[in-house]
Amino acid sequence: MKFSPLVDELIQSLRCLPGVGPKSAQRMAFHLLERGRPAGKALADVMGRAMSEVGHCRSCRTFTEQELCPICDSSRRGKSDTICVVETPADVLAIEAGGHFSGRYFVLLGHLSPLDGVGPEELGLSLLEEHLAGGEVSELILATNPTVEGDATAHYIADIARRYQINISRIAHGVPVGGELEYVDSTTLALAFTGRQSL
Amino acid sequence: MKFSPLVDELIQSLRCLPGVGPKSAQRMAFHLLERGRPAGKALADVMGRAMSEVGHCRSCRTFTEQELCPICDSSRRGKSDTICVVETPADVLAIEAGGHFSGRYFVLLGHLSPLDGVGPEELGLSLLEEHLAGGEVSELILATNPTVEGDATAHYIADIARRYQINISRIAHGVPVGGELEYVDSTTLALAFTGRQSL
Repeated sequence: MKFSPLVDELIQSLRCLPGVGPKSAQRMAFHLLERGRPAGKALADVMGRAMSEVGHCRSCRTFTEQELCPICDSSRRGKSDTICVVETPADVLAIEAGGHFSGRYFVLLGHLSPLDGVGPEELGLSLLEEHLAGGEVSELILATNPTVEGDATAHYIADIARRYQINISRIAHGVPVGGELEYVDSTTLALAFTGRQSL
Repeated sequence: MKFSPLVDELIQSLRCLPGVGPKSAQRMAFHLLERGRPAGKALADVMGRAMSEVGHCRSCRTFTEQELCPICDSSRRGKSDTICVVETPADVLAIEAGGHFSGRYFVLLGHLSPLDGVGPEELGLSLLEEHLAGGEVSELILATNPTVEGDATAHYIADIARRYQINISRIAHGVPVGGELEYVDSTTLALAFTGRQSL
């Protein structure tokens, strides 16, 4: 048996959210209909606006509905001479949660993956090169993910940045704080030894 | 740091969905913005319409945007003389998934709970009584949840139905098929013994 068309359609549509299967979708739909109509209406409105209005920051490519994101637009950080290159807007949020970095970002929105048709142009590397050529950047921190593709992307960007006499660094890889050596994989351990720092 | 206002608002609004915390909301928002804009737009549209258009079936109180739900509207089942009383529309879906019941439903949209201000009127029992008084109903199956409130509600409804010479039954409680006796709680086991059937 199916519900009324509109209720069915709501359950089906909710499955476009990541991690939501048929049962969760049904639970969400009934929850909204039973106890969350004002919140559901507000969500529908915000989602509709966000889907059509949110674009990318002209300077760093993160998500924003304005021309510049709050960081690029801030007088303190927007002209910072340190740029941190990350793969996704969520990475920006993770780094900002720490509060230790006060430069600006450049968001690739992916990583080099020729088989999927993702090349330098898709990652906005010409825009990044404009920033570097502008002479306002003194350090480029490559914080792409420690995966094969992330590493390849970091090396590719480092090759570009070398043309402009800029300090280039890659974030450290090693044993995470609070982790136990016993449970750390061998590649990470090897990197932790290679990257050891004198005391 | 916060994102742009609209992205923040989207993340916040997604938290109205059950089981969605700050991290999942963020993941959902980024997923929609990065890879699911058409689906997100469609979801926003359907959700908006469902929140304002979906009401309750005039006959059985389940969710529908029409006057009668598909079951009450069907020529085969809409006039059935057997009514199954359940607490929520999701219960209807669970019973329909089995496909063994071909009568119609009555959805209470809750259970008696005086402390929360849920009395007979909130459960639409006067509408149910109209059905019973109409003389078209020969059996009432009480399928409220096997909880204290569900049982109390079932007893209350049975008291009403007894005035109309109608067969009243409660669904069986016992050991679920595929379950192992070892792991069944003692109350359920006691009910399984009380409700034993001769072979």
